[in-house]
Amino acid sequence: MEEPESLKLLLADFALIPGYKVLVHGGGRSATAFAQKLGIESKMVDGRRITDRNMLEVVTMVYGGLVNKNIVAGLQALNVNALGLTGADLNYMRSEKRPVKEIDYGFVGDVKEVNAEILADLIAKGVVPVLAPLTHDKNGNLLNTNADTIAGETAKALAKYFEVTLMFCFEKKGVLMDEKNDESVIKHLNPEIFEKLVAEGIIQGGMIPKLENSFEALKSGVKQVVITRSDLIKMKNTGTTIKL
Amino acid sequence: MEEPESLKLLLADFALIPGYKVLVHGGGRSATAFAQKLGIESKMVDGRRITDRNMLEVVTMVYGGLVNKNIVAGLQALNVNALGLTGADLNYMRSEKRPVKEIDYGFVGDVKEVNAEILADLIAKGVVPVLAPLTHDKNGNLLNTNADTIAGETAKALAKYFEVTLMFCFEKKGVLMDEKNDESVIKHLNPEIFEKLVAEGIIQGGMIPKLENSFEALKSGVKQVVITRSDLIKMKNTGTTIKL
Repeated sequence: MEEPESLKLLLADFALIPGYKVLVHGGGRSATAFAQKLGIESKMVDGRRITDRNMLEVVTMVYGGLVNKNIVAGLQALNVNALGLTGADLNYMRSEKRPVKEIDYGFVGDVKEVNAEILADLIAKGVVPVLAPLTHDKNGNLLNTNADTIAGETAKALAKYFEVTLMFCFEKKGVLMDEKNDESVIKHLNPEIFEKLVAEGIIQGGMIPKLENSFEALKSGVKQVVITRSDLIKMKNTGTTIKL
Repeated sequence: MEEPESLKLLLADFALIPGYKVLVHGGGRSATAFAQKLGIESKMVDGRRITDRNMLEVVTMVYGGLVNKNIVAGLQALNVNALGLTGADLNYMRSEKRPVKEIDYGFVGDVKEVNAEILADLIAKGVVPVLAPLTHDKNGNLLNTNADTIAGETAKALAKYFEVTLMFCFEKKGVLMDEKNDESVIKHLNPEIFEKLVAEGIIQGGMIPKLENSFEALKSGVKQVVITRSDLIKMKNTGTTIKL
């Protein structure tokens, strides 16, 4: 999403998805690049960004401003009635600053409450929310929250109002049987197959929490989860489809 | 609005204004400060910012992200259901890049169209829009638009739906008879008195376009315009009240 040309292609594909939709974006690469220009070092632990006060300013600017508003403007050019939001807007997603244990993640928020009613209303009117990975604590503080989490929590909250498919886009066509073979996409996954493939060592690493989150979303009423490559989002039956 | 402490006071005052409301903010000082940290020079002509591509990135981040989202989070902490928007969101305000004449302002947008229907709907539901001084051209480009202009155009567009008072907050208690005497506030202005005071040299400089804009808003259905100091916004009958 962070290169103008690939963003353009992705938004054109996204615009083709029929029905109501919501887009959740990240922006980590741009945040790192801007932080560097400002002389602020990016520190990551297990792929999670340590967010001190300076870094919080950077992600507020980059996620909430630069990335979000360029996506919104890009979608509007495609006649998609986009509305950019953080969790502070409409008090959509309230979080609490993560307690400090072994690691102090700083201004990182764990989601506590999702208020999706107004959002569901807007979606039913044809508005397409574009969600930045920022939440707030309802005490005036913005917090950095992982985009996958925002997507999962949004899917769960909207399942009260709509039949929801949660799609995760990444650089592969889906969950692979053989990570060296891009064509070895596992078409269907359910908890049983998942556990078998984890036991066999076929599914491993960062894919495990992603899939565990997917099962949690399904248990909360999301109809299906699809993991696919971003240029395939407009097509049905691509990638890995996950159901209970 | 750009110092945490004064912002807090202003938002507390704003929260006390009864009835439906919209907040329009700027962010020029923060934009200049961030641009400087990034090694980008701020160029101003007659108080207007020359917005080249790098500066457009800065104002998108600062106005659309940093300033807007901190105001939204601050208002949510006061139980004001704020929703931060640029002109791209909901296709709320479409503009065109200012034609290059003597001065090339760069990515600065002149307002062409305001779509206030969804906004009016949200306001009637208790949502408080917080508008950043950014518009879009509906071709995927964000543009920098003066906050006073956003406020005036918003007041005019909402006059179709509500009885609108347009308030301009600045550092004085109102329009002054004697600029050296902060207490010499002109309580009431109309086009006749305005022309007389301009002819007498009492009203001059940057106040003239501000007041001309005010009369234009009034002609388009806005009920009254108030010019006052930001700590007085919660009080009735302060500052200068302008009617036709």
